[in-house]
Amino acid sequence: MILQSRSAFAIPVFAAVFSLMSAGRCVGADWSEQDLAAAAALRDKAMSGTRAFEHVSSLVTEVGPRPAGSPGDAAAVRWAMNRLGSLGFSHVHTQDVLVPHWVRGSAEVSIVTPFPQTLVATSIGGSVGTPDEGIEAQVLNATSLDALSALPPASVKGRIVFIDERMQRARDGSGYGATVRNRSQGPSVAADLGAVALVIRSVGTSDDRIAHTGGLNYRADAPRIPAFAISNPDADLLARQLQPGKPVRMRLKSTARELPPAWSANVIGEIPGHDRPQEIVLLAAHLDSWDLAQGAIDDGAGVAIVTEAARLISKLDRPPARTVRVVLFANEEFGTSGGREYARLAGDEIARHVLALEADFGAGPVWRIESRVAAESLPAIAAMQSVLAPVDVASGANTGDPGSDIRPLMNAGVPILDLTLDGTKYFDVHHTVNDTLLKVDSKALDQSVAAFAVAAYLAATKQGDFGRVAVEVK
Amino acid sequence: MILQSRSAFAIPVFAAVFSLMSAGRCVGADWSEQDLAAAAALRDKAMSGTRAFEHVSSLVTEVGPRPAGSPGDAAAVRWAMNRLGSLGFSHVHTQDVLVPHWVRGSAEVSIVTPFPQTLVATSIGGSVGTPDEGIEAQVLNATSLDALSALPPASVKGRIVFIDERMQRARDGSGYGATVRNRSQGPSVAADLGAVALVIRSVGTSDDRIAHTGGLNYRADAPRIPAFAISNPDADLLARQLQPGKPVRMRLKSTARELPPAWSANVIGEIPGHDRPQEIVLLAAHLDSWDLAQGAIDDGAGVAIVTEAARLISKLDRPPARTVRVVLFANEEFGTSGGREYARLAGDEIARHVLALEADFGAGPVWRIESRVAAESLPAIAAMQSVLAPVDVASGANTGDPGSDIRPLMNAGVPILDLTLDGTKYFDVHHTVNDTLLKVDSKALDQSVAAFAVAAYLAATKQGDFGRVAVEVK
Repeated sequence: MILQSRSAFAIPVFAAVFSLMSAGRCVGADWSEQDLAAAAALRDKAMSGTRAFEHVSSLVTEVGPRPAGSPGDAAAVRWAMNRLGSLGFSHVHTQDVLVPHWVRGSAEVSIVTPFPQTLVATSIGGSVGTPDEGIEAQVLNATSLDALSALPPASVKGRIVFIDERMQRARDGSGYGATVRNRSQGPSVAADLGAVALVIRSVGTSDDRIAHTGGLNYRADAPRIPAFAISNPDADLLARQLQPGKPVRMRLKSTARELPPAWSANVIGEIPGHDRPQEIVLLAAHLDSWDLAQGAIDDGAGVAIVTEAARLISKLDRPPARTVRVVLFANEEFGTSGGREYARLAGDEIARHVLALEADFGAGPVWRIESRVAAESLPAIAAMQSVLAPVDVASGANTGDPGSDIRPLMNAGVPILDLTLDGTKYFDVHHTVNDTLLKVDSKALDQSVAAFAVAAYLAATKQGDFGRVAVEVK
Repeated sequence: MILQSRSAFAIPVFAAVFSLMSAGRCVGADWSEQDLAAAAALRDKAMSGTRAFEHVSSLVTEVGPRPAGSPGDAAAVRWAMNRLGSLGFSHVHTQDVLVPHWVRGSAEVSIVTPFPQTLVATSIGGSVGTPDEGIEAQVLNATSLDALSALPPASVKGRIVFIDERMQRARDGSGYGATVRNRSQGPSVAADLGAVALVIRSVGTSDDRIAHTGGLNYRADAPRIPAFAISNPDADLLARQLQPGKPVRMRLKSTARELPPAWSANVIGEIPGHDRPQEIVLLAAHLDSWDLAQGAIDDGAGVAIVTEAARLISKLDRPPARTVRVVLFANEEFGTSGGREYARLAGDEIARHVLALEADFGAGPVWRIESRVAAESLPAIAAMQSVLAPVDVASGANTGDPGSDIRPLMNAGVPILDLTLDGTKYFDVHHTVNDTLLKVDSKALDQSVAAFAVAAYLAATKQGDFGRVAVEVK
């Protein structure tokens, strides 16, 4: 627990408390009337228009793709330093982070027989390349990773495995978790069974002819085979050629390769607290993107949301007691190097992190507030939700999911807030070339800024903290 | 005019006539009650489900891309011969057509300064390639072809011209005509002014990162400069970099080239008329597609619609008086070689073409019936519409647009029917890699089959003809 000094502004009469009491609950004196009024004003200010779209536009126009270790990655760090600096953040600085440096090269995937066609494909992030002459083999199709795992090795040996499982659309993105294993674990599962390569149906919801990348995890004890994703329409085409049951042969070629690790950086800026500046409310997003994308929704939007939320807080007449720290993390996409390094460097300072929030699920709007806080802080979360209810933010469970970058903090006991962004269309463009500024709705982005600004402001002005959470380390 | 023999089935009492008379109009004895009932039954049969989706699926699965002169083009001719033959068409045969053979090669388009980024681009069909080392120059942007034309040559000389005009969405596709000049005429207009290359915003309505191809027309008296299209999001990105007014430089590289002309073929099959078989109702579509596409909506859907419409007519107990001829044209996309060759070979037989209809605007549904017929035949068109009204086909003007392939016939006096397919989403995928089977709605396709089958059947059973039309040759 963090020792609290009582704020000069604390007056034990609270509109939110009254509304909660009338619902049969009773909370302590978390916020003064002024704090709650300031939060509501912050919400309304954001809803009337913010600079968030300008931030994401600047990032994708002046930097664009910024995969870990690339020139774009370095340009993004410079961009972020300049942006936070010019917006008046304090203590703008970087933390060096060593990141993997994989390059995609080219990928060629085609059906050779029975009906030759070239497919729209990409290498899966982290995949080894093929030999120069490529790989040609008969295709074995499986409907899921489990179905593949159940096959006898003799039927898989020497084959190109095709996992043909379509991701389902959902507001909370739950279809992703159900199919992303094909990409992350599939290569080693297939290799264990003797496959020479893996091709998966893209883990995405788009009907467009756009292949979806993302990272794989080779198991240390399995051979490393090349892995590709093909677009949904191309997977349909392959499935139709496979359907009659006659042999289908494919050719695969990839020049993907791993280069030596490179230096990148977390970029940090603060809105200092006026009363308890050593206590931190952390607003997180990640600066890197996949190479295929402009990185507008993943995670330019998150960068813009948290940057703008903090900037709006900095413009208030009444600054919050605690420090609001924005961290734009290096390399979320390829192993969360930035998030892990931040937690490592934070060390004992982790105890001074009162709450952490990440925006890494697109451009909004926020439709739900979930949390991982001590049970006694749930009424405070409910009070936050009541401030956000007018902008259509519903309440959720205390089993919220942090962003990848702040998971190490949560695992070390830091409470988190999960302002759930609407993911209905997120996986149409996520990790693809279609992740562009055209997919960002500036109104939804402003609403997301409102939600993050209100939550961060209230967390930074709350009398008590949110306790600590006990979470099983993943 | 074509001499008419009176059909054995003609009975001068017609439901459609009654309905038209009750609307204050009066038509001659175009169809018997049985003919009109058969047409309505044909409509209902098609609406209950057809094999059209199966035809287009087969074409895109077993052939795929089939640009003029390519191996896919030859495969498409074999596919069409087999398909029409196996469906029981008569007189299945080909007409040899010499076609241009252009190959796209690779295209690389990037912004060099101020903010280096690689753009999603493609060469425009027919473009020359660049020198091996590519072309690098400063960009000059123009908002339209007219704006470009008005510029002084000194401001254009040595520049890469960027025409930044966005196509507007419309049900009738009218936005296409307004912007396609940028692609077709733009290269020679820019070259005349001294430009070293042309880059246009894709002539399409999609927000996806998909470049749109299509053909260009080099003027004989203008230098031939390389021409590229970039996707809408990429055009936005370029526009944002240009916006501050500082110099923007681009690099372009293309290996596009023209090969010697190749042989392709129109594929023809017939449902013979029982009474006046020498008179022809022509159902047209084109067999070729762009190389980028699977060619599902352009024009696999058209191939499927006219093939299935004719097949359904062939299954009727009461065959039509006239012959229904399906022609699947070669090379519509790259200069309409097939349509022109068909008209040339037809010669005097053109006079025996009673009506021609083309399906070349996607997978439907049909929402309007327009025509180019002699004025005295307009009541017959109205009667056709009344049979199709229950499936939401509205009436239109007598200024209908033929498909490209049957324009030479119309210009020679052949009446045409324009069953207008809904083009609202057509230009999201037209001429792009996104033209896949997933964009074909089988219900809409069945409705289109209903419309084409009814129109062709009624045209093939009508007592009189549709006159001849006087049309200015384009």
